[in-house]
Amino acid sequence: MNIQQLIDDIARDVRPYLGQAAPAAYIPALAGEDPQQFAIAVATLDGHCHASGDSDTRFSIQSISKAFMLARVLEVYGDSLWSRVNKEPSGNPFNSLVQLEYEQGIPRNPFINAGALVVSDIALSQLGDCSTALREFLREESGAADIDFDQHIADSEAEHGHRNAALAHFMKSCGNLHNPVDSVLSHYFRACSLRMNVMELARAGLFLANHGRSPVSGEQRLTRSQAKQINAIMLTCGTYDAAGEFAYRVGLPCKSGVGGGILAILPGRMSIAVWSPGLDARGNSLAGLEALDRFTTRSGQSVF
Amino acid sequence: MNIQQLIDDIARDVRPYLGQAAPAAYIPALAGEDPQQFAIAVATLDGHCHASGDSDTRFSIQSISKAFMLARVLEVYGDSLWSRVNKEPSGNPFNSLVQLEYEQGIPRNPFINAGALVVSDIALSQLGDCSTALREFLREESGAADIDFDQHIADSEAEHGHRNAALAHFMKSCGNLHNPVDSVLSHYFRACSLRMNVMELARAGLFLANHGRSPVSGEQRLTRSQAKQINAIMLTCGTYDAAGEFAYRVGLPCKSGVGGGILAILPGRMSIAVWSPGLDARGNSLAGLEALDRFTTRSGQSVF
Amino acid sequence: MNIQQLIDDIARDVRPYLGQAAPAAYIPALAGEDPQQFAIAVATLDGHCHASGDSDTRFSIQSISKAFMLARVLEVYGDSLWSRVNKEPSGNPFNSLVQLEYEQGIPRNPFINAGALVVSDIALSQLGDCSTALREFLREESGAADIDFDQHIADSEAEHGHRNAALAHFMKSCGNLHNPVDSVLSHYFRACSLRMNVMELARAGLFLANHGRSPVSGEQRLTRSQAKQINAIMLTCGTYDAAGEFAYRVGLPCKSGVGGGILAILPGRMSIAVWSPGLDARGNSLAGLEALDRFTTRSGQSVF
Amino acid sequence: MNIQQLIDDIARDVRPYLGQAAPAAYIPALAGEDPQQFAIAVATLDGHCHASGDSDTRFSIQSISKAFMLARVLEVYGDSLWSRVNKEPSGNPFNSLVQLEYEQGIPRNPFINAGALVVSDIALSQLGDCSTALREFLREESGAADIDFDQHIADSEAEHGHRNAALAHFMKSCGNLHNPVDSVLSHYFRACSLRMNVMELARAGLFLANHGRSPVSGEQRLTRSQAKQINAIMLTCGTYDAAGEFAYRVGLPCKSGVGGGILAILPGRMSIAVWSPGLDARGNSLAGLEALDRFTTRSGQSVF
Repeated sequence: MNIQQLIDDIARDVRPYLGQAAPAAYIPALAGEDPQQFAIAVATLDGHCHASGDSDTRFSIQSISKAFMLARVLEVYGDSLWSRVNKEPSGNPFNSLVQLEYEQGIPRNPFINAGALVVSDIALSQLGDCSTALREFLREESGAADIDFDQHIADSEAEHGHRNAALAHFMKSCGNLHNPVDSVLSHYFRACSLRMNVMELARAGLFLANHGRSPVSGEQRLTRSQAKQINAIMLTCGTYDAAGEFAYRVGLPCKSGVGGGILAILPGRMSIAVWSPGLDARGNSLAGLEALDRFTTRSGQSVF
Repeated sequence: MNIQQLIDDIARDVRPYLGQAAPAAYIPALAGEDPQQFAIAVATLDGHCHASGDSDTRFSIQSISKAFMLARVLEVYGDSLWSRVNKEPSGNPFNSLVQLEYEQGIPRNPFINAGALVVSDIALSQLGDCSTALREFLREESGAADIDFDQHIADSEAEHGHRNAALAHFMKSCGNLHNPVDSVLSHYFRACSLRMNVMELARAGLFLANHGRSPVSGEQRLTRSQAKQINAIMLTCGTYDAAGEFAYRVGLPCKSGVGGGILAILPGRMSIAVWSPGLDARGNSLAGLEALDRFTTRSGQSVF
Repeated sequence: MNIQQLIDDIARDVRPYLGQAAPAAYIPALAGEDPQQFAIAVATLDGHCHASGDSDTRFSIQSISKAFMLARVLEVYGDSLWSRVNKEPSGNPFNSLVQLEYEQGIPRNPFINAGALVVSDIALSQLGDCSTALREFLREESGAADIDFDQHIADSEAEHGHRNAALAHFMKSCGNLHNPVDSVLSHYFRACSLRMNVMELARAGLFLANHGRSPVSGEQRLTRSQAKQINAIMLTCGTYDAAGEFAYRVGLPCKSGVGGGILAILPGRMSIAVWSPGLDARGNSLAGLEALDRFTTRSGQSVF
Repeated sequence: MNIQQLIDDIARDVRPYLGQAAPAAYIPALAGEDPQQFAIAVATLDGHCHASGDSDTRFSIQSISKAFMLARVLEVYGDSLWSRVNKEPSGNPFNSLVQLEYEQGIPRNPFINAGALVVSDIALSQLGDCSTALREFLREESGAADIDFDQHIADSEAEHGHRNAALAHFMKSCGNLHNPVDSVLSHYFRACSLRMNVMELARAGLFLANHGRSPVSGEQRLTRSQAKQINAIMLTCGTYDAAGEFAYRVGLPCKSGVGGGILAILPGRMSIAVWSPGLDARGNSLAGLEALDRFTTRSGQSVF
């Protein structure tokens, strides 16, 4: 497989999709992104990184940060995590309160907003300034020392984040947040506001394709089992209520964000990052999904 | 990997779990199964089949039939299927009416009961006597010409099947069943009542591990994409509301049945069938899940 | 208060509403009713009956039959009834399965369809041919010996009644129907198909305004407490998910039907029946609600 | 009817119920109330007030304040209110988020917490310091110039009020709160913390029995229609998810609070206040409901 040829073809083929979807509107600071942008990068275990499109442009990783924060918490807190958050697909929008109420404040999985807030709460207890710790982790894994928060985005989310505040207060009322609501929200929004480009993102995710060991530092970040577990949760829960569609069309563990980025893992081989700001009805990058579909279909590579 | 050694070890190691769970109680004809029974079989693409435990004993495959019926319908009806049933995890028990009502009679996926009834309805329209057609398919793939229905089980389910009748009448009221309710239910119950042993089941499922081509007949049953799609749906939806748990612990596409059987697929390599009648709280074989967990953990083989 | 003058005024004033709503579409035999029809009748405890509009025209009483069937069952079965059906407003459409599933097959109240099916089931066990018994009761109370079923309507409902069949099968699966599903549905549809005019309906309902004693026969049909209880359930649950709106605007216990009829009770004084086939979005007669609103506002008479 | 005799009898007869239920536990400052306390008072339109039991003891009126705040808002804001809150029974617990999410942030009625928060938000916009305005209103109507907030209770609720904060933030995210979340919550908790005894409460509610005119000042507080409307909403929505039970057993418009008080209205005749801190499973005073049931049954007086 000639990866560079393949992703160049894909970058060309998805062009018709770029005008068809709009960026996230609910965060004013994201709404202004040019929907014509597209990038794809593939990082392989042997150290190569291929890219096509706007691969130097950084974007707000938003919910993709949830996969990395989960990895950090699983690393330091282990399976105790699962008494406070479940690991089943939700079948509901990412910010729904309905399921949370029926299930007494235990979020369905760590990738819906409620679950990510619990993970942030644990991270805060275990790691202290967890958003900064996450930034350091991503700088190290990606090799880009200037990755940083976009405080403007973080502030914008906090200001318009009444829905997340509702989730946090509800869980606080159930005893499932231990830190003050405002602290948890603040670190959550900061982690979501991190800006990376597709090459940095693909490199940072490579330890998940490498059974938990960082290809950069050689450090075993997660056990082999834990890496498998995160990939499993990405596949069943990583793309909001479109997990079935992604599994069906892409067939890879993926984590998406409303900034238009998606990180995909092909265990034992490579990680793939795509980005395009226009979102489909379920909040995933429209062109990003098209690109990943083409990648696995044309390469014949997926977990299935 | 010495498969025979591995599954013999597993058969021994799961013994403590055999007394801990009871068979399905809601179908009287299943409730009497001895919960001490356990079997495991592995069929590989090179034509070998390894087995351990009560591997000659046939059991009621129940919902595992849904994976095969779906494959038949996808083969003859193609993607038109997806206008009548979705492919997202449900996050709800397999026989729930709640989601079906909120979503206007379009079942969440083909493996919850409502979805399987729609698949049966299409099969009835496309294949005529679809339960018999399924039996012939399974006889051919497994090489066991005497695989048959258990009419006693089918009748017992029909008699106690008011919940399924409720699902069917509801979808009929939404226009999503085209054949008479009684015909659909009758073929559905008959397909569920098929009896097979783990070796027959592993062999019958091998085409899903072989990218759609039957290792027995050499026939391309499904396209490569379709085989990938069925595996994806098995992974995200195949084990009732425990899909996340199975992905996390086992990491393979699986389809379970309340008879205590589970079929698992390792794409490109093998299929695995386990059986033990005692069910956990979510309706999956307790010892079966333990066995599959051990299989992928010890062999280091999973899709993740 | 000059009742005749008042209802003649109302009949004139509601004319603009007659063209604004369509009859129930889901029962083909009802869909053809002329929406320009309107009638109102008031029966007082002193034996007078005033009427205006198409007061000789009989119509399908549909769910209004539920109030009478409930009265009969309360009379013969007493409070045992309340172990099988609750008496709280549902907040959901009349044919919803959602609440029924969350509440394990115990309907929220006797006036949603599920509850009325349970009441019919008890009536069948207690009274035998309960739809005929109900017809006899209504003939006696109204003094109209030729009140009868419309078998064409009953058959039409049975044929298109998959939603009610879903409710019935679901409750059967929960053990909350004791008779065969088909028998219960058949009597339920027959009772709903009874045809009466507004004068007959007002007279038949007068015992509920008279603390349980029939003004016709002098017979104490219900205890004073039971009559109060039925009025209470009519007020909180009698008009589908518009009970709050009716209480707010009309302020009387009411029971409506999709045939366009509404029976209202002013305890201690009178009963009022209105009819007009056009239904509002929640399934109540649009002009009927307007008429009752005017009646209580202009007369200054309501329970509040 | 000898009212004094009747309520003395009732005070004696409900004694066995006093030990059977515990005060609200979720507000620490309420949990310590002695559950043996009981009081009842009846204020009639002719100016008399009868009382029995601990009728001089003030208690936290909690949600009963919602009826008075609604009256004030209806008075100054009129029917515009109904575009921001509905008036249907909820069929769900008073603090549920589920319905609110399904219905896009429009609360089901003004007496569930979400609805009362919207009413408080309007009151804040219309009346300024609305909790103080409510206190003045209650002082005037009851004739007790020293009625006041219990700031300790209000603070305690604010500190433990994450569930109400979740409701408020959710509605803010839907655009259905116009003032800052913290201000709305603060006035809401202050209004709930008002302390009154049963005689003061019965007197203060008398204008609702008097078709909107204050018997104290002679002032027409509400139009006749508005008084009827508030009584209607009290009957269908005033006692959390036990409105059906109250209508069935008591048959009067009632508004209850978790402090153990209940205000009941017999339109055209009297208002009744009861208090006993022990709550039943649905959050209403256990002995209070028993007392009201006896009052209407023995006096033969109810709206039905």
